Amino acid sequence: MPCDEHLERWMHREGLGLLTDFYQLTMMGGYWKSAKTEERACFEYYFRDLPPHTGYAVFAGLEQLLDYLEHLRFSEQDMAYLRSLSVFEEGFLRALGELRFTGDVHAVAEGTPVFPNEPIVRVEAPLMEAQLLETFVLNALNYQTLIATKAARICQAANGEPVLEFGLRRAQGPDGGLCGARAAYLGGCEGTSNVLAGRMFGVPVRGTLAHSWVMSFPDELTAFRKYAEAFPDNCTLLVDTYDTMASGVPNAIRVFQELRRTNPELTPAIRLDSGDLARLSKQAHRMFVEAGFENPLIYASGDLDEDLIADLKRQGARINGWGVGTHLITSKDYPALGGIYKLVAIQSEGSWHSRIKISSNPAKTTDPGIKRVMRCWGADDEPLGDVLIGQDEPLMSGPSVRCVDRLRFYERRTLTGITRCEELLACVIRDGRRAQVRPTLNEIRGHAQRRLAELPQEYRRLRNPHIYTVALSPALAETKRQLLEKDWGS
Amino acid sequence: MPCDEHLERWMHREGLGLLTDFYQLTMMGGYWKSAKTEERACFEYYFRDLPPHTGYAVFAGLEQLLDYLEHLRFSEQDMAYLRSLSVFEEGFLRALGELRFTGDVHAVAEGTPVFPNEPIVRVEAPLMEAQLLETFVLNALNYQTLIATKAARICQAANGEPVLEFGLRRAQGPDGGLCGARAAYLGGCEGTSNVLAGRMFGVPVRGTLAHSWVMSFPDELTAFRKYAEAFPDNCTLLVDTYDTMASGVPNAIRVFQELRRTNPELTPAIRLDSGDLARLSKQAHRMFVEAGFENPLIYASGDLDEDLIADLKRQGARINGWGVGTHLITSKDYPALGGIYKLVAIQSEGSWHSRIKISSNPAKTTDPGIKRVMRCWGADDEPLGDVLIGQDEPLMSGPSVRCVDRLRFYERRTLTGITRCEELLACVIRDGRRAQVRPTLNEIRGHAQRRLAELPQEYRRLRNPHIYTVALSPALAETKRQLLEKDWGS
Repeated sequence: MPCDEHLERWMHREGLGLLTDFYQLTMMGGYWKSAKTEERACFEYYFRDLPPHTGYAVFAGLEQLLDYLEHLRFSEQDMAYLRSLSVFEEGFLRALGELRFTGDVHAVAEGTPVFPNEPIVRVEAPLMEAQLLETFVLNALNYQTLIATKAARICQAANGEPVLEFGLRRAQGPDGGLCGARAAYLGGCEGTSNVLAGRMFGVPVRGTLAHSWVMSFPDELTAFRKYAEAFPDNCTLLVDTYDTMASGVPNAIRVFQELRRTNPELTPAIRLDSGDLARLSKQAHRMFVEAGFENPLIYASGDLDEDLIADLKRQGARINGWGVGTHLITSKDYPALGGIYKLVAIQSEGSWHSRIKISSNPAKTTDPGIKRVMRCWGADDEPLGDVLIGQDEPLMSGPSVRCVDRLRFYERRTLTGITRCEELLACVIRDGRRAQVRPTLNEIRGHAQRRLAELPQEYRRLRNPHIYTVALSPALAETKRQLLEKDWGS
Repeated sequence: MPCDEHLERWMHREGLGLLTDFYQLTMMGGYWKSAKTEERACFEYYFRDLPPHTGYAVFAGLEQLLDYLEHLRFSEQDMAYLRSLSVFEEGFLRALGELRFTGDVHAVAEGTPVFPNEPIVRVEAPLMEAQLLETFVLNALNYQTLIATKAARICQAANGEPVLEFGLRRAQGPDGGLCGARAAYLGGCEGTSNVLAGRMFGVPVRGTLAHSWVMSFPDELTAFRKYAEAFPDNCTLLVDTYDTMASGVPNAIRVFQELRRTNPELTPAIRLDSGDLARLSKQAHRMFVEAGFENPLIYASGDLDEDLIADLKRQGARINGWGVGTHLITSKDYPALGGIYKLVAIQSEGSWHSRIKISSNPAKTTDPGIKRVMRCWGADDEPLGDVLIGQDEPLMSGPSVRCVDRLRFYERRTLTGITRCEELLACVIRDGRRAQVRPTLNEIRGHAQRRLAELPQEYRRLRNPHIYTVALSPALAETKRQLLEKDWGS
């Protein structure tokens, strides 16, 4: 039987130097030619907008980014390919062949709720290295953060009942399915249908049977009996192959009655995959109760999302487990988090210079300077807001802090009632090496669940959530004002 | 310098036996236990709905599916993981360890326009093997078909001007970016920013510089000069870092004037990434013409899709190249094609029995039986419609053919003016081995472009396209009617 070390290496993001935009390589070639190889740069990853109706994001994908950084290099085949393009000088290609990531990375802990316009990851490294990373940083963090966030919303709608991720078939490629399953579990799902995600990430796997099982037998009752015979302890019968109420549920009850003869403790379980789920679940529940089964498990699946789940609950549907596929694995209503990775400062001749990107849309003008993120906590152990402060500013102390809106500098605010401040960005890579022990996925998931529970309900509700405060320190706002007024043209 | 054979193996979809839904494995375990290992089954892949406003889909992803089938097996690590779940019997696990794909696959040629409710891939294999495939078939074909289709629409809006795929940073994971770049090229894009897609699939790669290049220099003019010095022959200047009209375009013109001294044939090129693209492109074009550059290349990027491109063209924008990211790589307005893989027949005791899945929504009731797809062509070498016929029905001949609507059997139609019939499903895997020479991506892309060009404009327009005819042969409709009336419950 063959080994498949290649899967481990792929999942550990080894050798993905070329998984980048071509312009990163031309810019690196240009930096090399312009003798900017000694300069260091600081880039920050953040996003400007949350998905619709969403008050927070669950940060995810960090472990894959750290794996990538540890293994970042260009292989012989990469170099041969780049050479074939006849674009780059040999000296630059030699430098690329020797490139390793040597910089520092600070990041918010994976699983932490994060908000627009605050740095979530900060990279300080030689300009060429920091530039190269941009594409992978965005690819790794945007998708998993999006899916963990969607999962958290769906789990919130399910209100403690198990949510299973069933999306692999509709995922955007094999890796979308794998990392999506990881992010969905991190965000609160109880398991996945994706077996390789089970093996690779330890996500619990779940599943029983599909319509094809039923159709492969001459009739539904035989199909149910045969499945119950094969897996008496993992028997959730899918009841909508032919007619849910006329045959599916009655046949399932008959088979569970047969199983009960040998196992009196049996809890029957069915899955509804189509039709009017509210009505069918109530009817099915009643039929099970009438047959002497007090607490049947009734799973529902089929194009569900958080709104449908919340609506089914409002209707009193007798569903107690949820299988969610397409809407979760693709975040169907908002399939791309617009996270960006922006240069905020450049070091030349030993000192850092803040940099700004100006836009005719002020929301897209960047916040210059190397920043830290201070999360301010109040008396009920609830977060009050996040304040961005400059790298060299003293940490805040005392029960109140002044800050400034990032767009309207005249809008000065004071956060009050602060009991403690938490610095969110911690060093995760120092000089190119992991600076922390690798957490398990279950530890990350536990952290996410605790932090989500601390987040006041007003930020978590599914419609019109309250907007969480993220503001600049007065010093950062002043830097931004000065850089906005500077002539950058020549 | 290291080798990275693992990337090749991943891209060739080696050893992805566990990249499946857990229920495929439990069903396989059940088939094994129910002594159904000798039965053969036929499954068909098709989709019910096209993305909004879309009249066709461009079939893509087949090569990755064939790679997967050739390499399908379970590794030692897979088996160890499955054993750890304590769900499966050892005898079944042994059978799984020896499993290879031994069946036959018929498929439409990759790149062919396809339509709802017609089989695009047909798998005939031992039931256990055919069942296992479901998840990967859907994962591989749904995503690439979706992206190739989106690319075709975007290229149609660009009306012959080059479209570049820039989406890696917003793709759903690394593999989404890679296969998305492949599908986008297949669907008509001229290139990608994704360098690894260039190496792995031969997609042409493109790119020059980002805002960070400009911001890493003390001012914009210096940044432009340094880039032009490094890459005088691949110099598209990004002009919106600070102020497009006040500094970006004037600085770019100055640098191109300097370059022109040594290269009088130079064509200047800029990229607009924000702001009012219609207005800015016209102003920039005028400034270039006034500076003596007759035909500047003006690329646009920034949240573009087919509708925005068509609208910019209606406004007379002076843009002649398009960079499209998020909307293309995620098919943002419709991020999951709902393709399905359904059991249509089962073989027992040597003969095939058609199978049906019945739904309270008639559109979701399957069309039973092993089918062929006949594309009927008219006098102008335009396709008239596709007729599904049973495996054993004689091929149609003559200028007209009778067929039946798949939902309303009383709706009988006649396709007339047929000059030739083409059988779309060809054997691509025979007894588990490739039955055809592997086409190059450029060959597939050429086929797609020719077939799209043959498709009448009425099916290709961006709004309210005409609905292409896909209908059943009278014999298939009769089989469906009989199976609908059968009692499948017991």
